Amino acid sequence: MSKLKTKDPHIRELAALVSGPYSILYEREDLLAYDCDGFTIHKHLPKAVVFPNTTEEVAAIVRYCARHRLPFLARGAGTGLSGGAIPVNGEVIISLVKMKRLLEVDLENRRAVVEPGYINLKLTNSISDKGYYYAPDPSSQSCCTIGGNVAENAGGAHCLKYGVTTNHILGLEIVLPNGDIIEIGAGGIPDAPGYDLLGLFTGSEGTLGIVTKITVRILKNPEAKQTVLAYFDKVEAGSQAVSDIISAGIVPAALEMMDKTAIEGVESAAFPVGHPLDIEALLLIEVDGISAGIEEQIDHILTVCQRHHVREVKVAQDEGERARWWANRKTGFGAMGAISADYLVQDGVIPRSKLPEVLTCINQISKESGLRIANIFHAGDGNLHPLILFDARIPGQAEKALEVGSACLKVCADVGGSITGEHGVGIEKMNEMRYIFSEEEISAQTDIREVFNPDRLLNDGKLFPSPGRCVEVKLAKQAEKV
Amino acid sequence: MSKLKTKDPHIRELAALVSGPYSILYEREDLLAYDCDGFTIHKHLPKAVVFPNTTEEVAAIVRYCARHRLPFLARGAGTGLSGGAIPVNGEVIISLVKMKRLLEVDLENRRAVVEPGYINLKLTNSISDKGYYYAPDPSSQSCCTIGGNVAENAGGAHCLKYGVTTNHILGLEIVLPNGDIIEIGAGGIPDAPGYDLLGLFTGSEGTLGIVTKITVRILKNPEAKQTVLAYFDKVEAGSQAVSDIISAGIVPAALEMMDKTAIEGVESAAFPVGHPLDIEALLLIEVDGISAGIEEQIDHILTVCQRHHVREVKVAQDEGERARWWANRKTGFGAMGAISADYLVQDGVIPRSKLPEVLTCINQISKESGLRIANIFHAGDGNLHPLILFDARIPGQAEKALEVGSACLKVCADVGGSITGEHGVGIEKMNEMRYIFSEEEISAQTDIREVFNPDRLLNDGKLFPSPGRCVEVKLAKQAEKV
Repeated sequence: MSKLKTKDPHIRELAALVSGPYSILYEREDLLAYDCDGFTIHKHLPKAVVFPNTTEEVAAIVRYCARHRLPFLARGAGTGLSGGAIPVNGEVIISLVKMKRLLEVDLENRRAVVEPGYINLKLTNSISDKGYYYAPDPSSQSCCTIGGNVAENAGGAHCLKYGVTTNHILGLEIVLPNGDIIEIGAGGIPDAPGYDLLGLFTGSEGTLGIVTKITVRILKNPEAKQTVLAYFDKVEAGSQAVSDIISAGIVPAALEMMDKTAIEGVESAAFPVGHPLDIEALLLIEVDGISAGIEEQIDHILTVCQRHHVREVKVAQDEGERARWWANRKTGFGAMGAISADYLVQDGVIPRSKLPEVLTCINQISKESGLRIANIFHAGDGNLHPLILFDARIPGQAEKALEVGSACLKVCADVGGSITGEHGVGIEKMNEMRYIFSEEEISAQTDIREVFNPDRLLNDGKLFPSPGRCVEVKLAKQAEKV
Repeated sequence: MSKLKTKDPHIRELAALVSGPYSILYEREDLLAYDCDGFTIHKHLPKAVVFPNTTEEVAAIVRYCARHRLPFLARGAGTGLSGGAIPVNGEVIISLVKMKRLLEVDLENRRAVVEPGYINLKLTNSISDKGYYYAPDPSSQSCCTIGGNVAENAGGAHCLKYGVTTNHILGLEIVLPNGDIIEIGAGGIPDAPGYDLLGLFTGSEGTLGIVTKITVRILKNPEAKQTVLAYFDKVEAGSQAVSDIISAGIVPAALEMMDKTAIEGVESAAFPVGHPLDIEALLLIEVDGISAGIEEQIDHILTVCQRHHVREVKVAQDEGERARWWANRKTGFGAMGAISADYLVQDGVIPRSKLPEVLTCINQISKESGLRIANIFHAGDGNLHPLILFDARIPGQAEKALEVGSACLKVCADVGGSITGEHGVGIEKMNEMRYIFSEEEISAQTDIREVFNPDRLLNDGKLFPSPGRCVEVKLAKQAEKV
């Protein structure tokens, strides 16, 4: 490794635990790239960033940190949206980007084994010629890692039919905060005996251990796929169409909605496809499965749309058109940059039947706050993503955006929903946990954290509100944003 | 309540905590009915059996037991197959049979709320006229309770396509071993934030808390359903057909197999349907979904069967025929009584590709031990059920049956499988946990038990091998069996 320009003994010791070049970053200008993740409102510098190559190196780093009581956390691609990888305690960041191998593909038993830094979309790309794919498809799938997906229990547009990450994880190798290495999930067989630690670790947001190997389920490519785009003058009509499609017993692979502001955004950004700008709602609906029956499902969907006075509805004519529609949708969050200086994405879940009522409330919150809100979301499973548009250069707007986001989540919680569907709690929604959990219910969870992470050195100050005191929320200095 | 004929202060106090008649059983002749569950090889008398009516009564009983350090456990219908409800420490049994109400049906959001003593099949029966059903269908569904299904994470024939119980549980109310009442699952919305306690409690075999209310997912009835019965001269041909059906991208709702000995059993019992007795394997295959496409799937399945030299294959001509085939299959375990004095059912899971190899090993074990083994199983998801036939009146045979069962599980573990797919570990398979878990992996689980059940008063001596000492296995006295 290259010569270190520091005398800090921890940096030197940590560097020595990792083989090869580029083992550690520790200078301020390097660390700046690691001061936040996809949740950009909070920024904190890590002590250092280490780049292990193997499970054993991860375990050695963890043991070193534990022995010297250095706080630490794991990081994948840093695309998380709730701040789970932000070093709020000046952590040593254990970056898993070098552990990015595809270790095994077992088509016969429909599973693959990857390292945590392996990019989500690469898995599908590497098995698609054999007719297989990996289902969870967060919008960031071209750059996010499967390790990060496990930490956040990531979702995606196609989770309506196929389930979120936890439904596709068959086994995990984990380095516990004391440096022990365990394997859970009985070698890739689901429904392992004993407690469901696989479910417990998936979505634990990096607070219980560091995942170093992942066995995932892979699926056979559907024989056929059809995609429908429908434009509605009224948002209520679009919501009702969603409800009627599901009630008909059709389970679309994806059922996405965008509202007027969201459409303005995506049409102003990198992948415009010519959506009309004066409609209130757009539905993007995909069905897949064996060829026989797909046409009948599409006919049924078209009939439902007509019944709800759709302005225009069309079926993708080829894979190119389908891909353009999806690129337009999947870059929707980033597209907000075209119509707003900053945006904050929220992630609430509601019972599907409450959709019109909740959209009205969010609209009302937007009017009262003076901040525009765009809605891009997984309508089929009631997973909303209000995008709160603001300008961090205007004093007070970032704070107001956070308040508006919290108010939107309160609306979701009040109708019997939840405060996150797929983005996690992180540092962003710790306080909102109280909207849905009692003190006893939070204790039951923090008691479990005590089992694995008793010294709270691993990714502390996340996920749970600290009992008895207001959680400190520090906004990034305006100066850093501009 | 009726006058108590005992001066035991615990019995009197416990009885006083429960309203209405039939609040407690405590006399030996009454307790005998509770000395085992569906795993009949071990028998232990409980101290008493209490019958609470409400969550609050359950909590009061739990608090009383905790205060007086009386061991206790929960029991549903007692159909469990691994001994999870057997009072090995002379527990106070908290029977949940009186808490059997259907509390809410919310068709629009596809969920229902039931009490733990509610019978599995009653849920489907009560919503089928509206076009809905509850998917998990253990063979005991006409008498087992949904509370028990949650404890064991029960499966069933249709879990190949629809998943096991944990995939259908949206929320739980739980009385913890200290008497606290918590609700988990965010009001029925899946993917709740925080740790996945819903997954953790589901399948925890009654060792972490007592479930008192359950929110389940209900599904729309499939528009169409077709069932195929196929007879194969050779077991390898049947196994290969299973593999080819799955490889074709078809996901049958169920894909069941029975071998020659199993067929002899079901044809000698209550629901014979005329299966030939000289074939080595029978497949029962069901596909469901929207009507369009079902015929094509059936055609494909028939073609696969022909390719593997099926002797005879037929499609059920009406619902009556389909029901008769399923009755024949679902009573398969009990049918063993027609050809053997006793039987022990095992429950291993293997990667589907290992099916022929594992069946050969099991056959070998049968030959060496001199005990016949019938195989009835969920072939589609590699969940085997070897039924070991024995006669408990012959000294040594019960012990030998246990040994043979353990040997079958070892075979499953050795090919990368698991020791239980749906029946749980209970007292039956505690030692076999070591086939798949290291000491650290077992500790990670028992540490979680410590969080919720630190005094080990709730259902102790189950699920995990005691570290450092051989787990005591006491066979029921032969005298009690005869």
